[in-house]
Amino acid sequence: MRAATYQAAGHVTVEDVPDPVIQQPTDAVVRVVRACVCGSDLWSWRGVTKRDPGARLGHEFIGVVEETGADVATVRRGDLVVAPFQWSDGTCPACLDGIHTRCEHGGGFGGPGSDGGQGEAVRVPQADGTLVVVPGGLAGVDAAVLPSLLALSDVAATGLHGAVLADATEGSTVVVIGDGAVGLSAVLGARTVLGAERVVLMSRHEDRAALGRAFGATDVVAARGDEGVAAVRELTGGLGARHVVEAVGTPESWSMAIGMARVGGTIGAVGVPHTSPELGIFQPFVQHLTLRFGLAPVRRYLPDLVERTMAGTYDAGPVFDLSLPLEQVADGYRAMDERRSVKAMLVP
Amino acid sequence: MRAATYQAAGHVTVEDVPDPVIQQPTDAVVRVVRACVCGSDLWSWRGVTKRDPGARLGHEFIGVVEETGADVATVRRGDLVVAPFQWSDGTCPACLDGIHTRCEHGGGFGGPGSDGGQGEAVRVPQADGTLVVVPGGLAGVDAAVLPSLLALSDVAATGLHGAVLADATEGSTVVVIGDGAVGLSAVLGARTVLGAERVVLMSRHEDRAALGRAFGATDVVAARGDEGVAAVRELTGGLGARHVVEAVGTPESWSMAIGMARVGGTIGAVGVPHTSPELGIFQPFVQHLTLRFGLAPVRRYLPDLVERTMAGTYDAGPVFDLSLPLEQVADGYRAMDERRSVKAMLVP
Repeated sequence: MRAATYQAAGHVTVEDVPDPVIQQPTDAVVRVVRACVCGSDLWSWRGVTKRDPGARLGHEFIGVVEETGADVATVRRGDLVVAPFQWSDGTCPACLDGIHTRCEHGGGFGGPGSDGGQGEAVRVPQADGTLVVVPGGLAGVDAAVLPSLLALSDVAATGLHGAVLADATEGSTVVVIGDGAVGLSAVLGARTVLGAERVVLMSRHEDRAALGRAFGATDVVAARGDEGVAAVRELTGGLGARHVVEAVGTPESWSMAIGMARVGGTIGAVGVPHTSPELGIFQPFVQHLTLRFGLAPVRRYLPDLVERTMAGTYDAGPVFDLSLPLEQVADGYRAMDERRSVKAMLVP
Repeated sequence: MRAATYQAAGHVTVEDVPDPVIQQPTDAVVRVVRACVCGSDLWSWRGVTKRDPGARLGHEFIGVVEETGADVATVRRGDLVVAPFQWSDGTCPACLDGIHTRCEHGGGFGGPGSDGGQGEAVRVPQADGTLVVVPGGLAGVDAAVLPSLLALSDVAATGLHGAVLADATEGSTVVVIGDGAVGLSAVLGARTVLGAERVVLMSRHEDRAALGRAFGATDVVAARGDEGVAAVRELTGGLGARHVVEAVGTPESWSMAIGMARVGGTIGAVGVPHTSPELGIFQPFVQHLTLRFGLAPVRRYLPDLVERTMAGTYDAGPVFDLSLPLEQVADGYRAMDERRSVKAMLVP
């Protein structure tokens, strides 16, 4: 089959690789229908995350089940499925706590020895715990809904998780730092799923701000740094925001998040800290903050989000503003790296 | 009146100072019945926190109301009262959120321009919002209960707050890092007030460990650092603790707290970060942790803790293992600095 492979920083190609086969009785093989490029993929594109030449890429996909191992009980050949970006068994202590991204038997697509989402097919370990079936199958789903389902595999659920970590609830005021696909999805999740009344999106890109508004942002703040903090404080009666989603993960974004949080507020952090910023704990102490962290356990949210998506009450599909054939995957990386695209979808 | 004053690092004296008088209609003047030395006072004793020579000291006291301003409605001359270590109005947004230590009109006893607790009397601003009356008055309280009431002014409620921040509830397993008066009080609060089933105290001082056991600790771990982390993991089925109280505030204690927390766990931090440690956020992210910080809003807990203390169902008094006349306050500082005493009570 054909699959995207890493060659060097800024150099991604599509190569012939071995077809996936069932290796464990808990595996499934899924033919990819749609895949995409993640903001976190850009860390290897930029050479920040080291990868071996030939490494497989991508961790977001939806597809049709082609084959299942002997022990797989909940998905069948022909099912349309959404995969979260990591597999999980659904039965270990972490999974039972809803933290599927720390599953004892879990792992990430595109990691060493596993298929990536950016290819024609994927071997999915722990298929029962991992895959979520879309009712009706591929034939029953309008092609226009495929991007909406694909978005659930990572960014939509990750953004929602940020809002959940920030403790956003019915009637809340939430600020979202980060206008990438995850931040935009946090806006959508906070408003549509959690019922937040007011969502402030920090964005200085008019196209992203427009999508944020379409997703339910009630306010957009273009200012950054101290000015951004001051603007949010002004919008919140001088008190700051009770709920802040940190969807960037840099020292600058953290500084903003802490600066704009209300005394006693909560910061939900889903921006993967590739630069591992250090946080002085004095300010969180003075402000009585709650800081909640974690790589989103997408699987926890998938059944609900698939149902909402199929019911038409929730649509994260518009995060995709570029669609490319798999063979042009490098153009997707490049467009996202240059911020010409929020998120690029790939069609095998 | 007589009051403790700071002269230099390691040098505290008792001097004649002006008697407190009502300055604002919301003030009360309280004659001190019992006061004490706080672990945080040792930062100025050690010269870490800079104080001006002559600065007043102490922020924990109970006493009898001597005079009240015209606007004071809830406390009267002759009332026995417990004061939290900071005053607060009880009506501002922070107070209404239960974060009295960020009151808009708040301040700390012993700060510039205010009386300290380590003296014969104290002017208490915002008396209605601040003071909590002990039913029955001084005549109705057994002298043996006075230390128990005094402990509520800071350490008892601060320890409880740590356990609350760590999300300890009925049946929880909680680890407490820090065997000072606050850590010991966290043990007591977690067990007696919150109903935790298992409380592990990190302590390598046998006298403190014994008091911890008397307060309800089910396990004591003497090991520190990586060995301490390993010991807690062994006690918790390899998973780590869901609830960790960080009552020290150093990089070492933070490292232990993060190392021993279960995936998805919560660390409640009430150790005042005088050294302002920096925290790499990568590990909290990987472990899906919740970190909750804050200077304890003692006033929130006082009415309940006074009631429990008077009912005899809760007794933090044993944190005091030394009682001295006010004139010997320096001996109290010295004994605590040299760790010969957990906490020293002062009798004016």
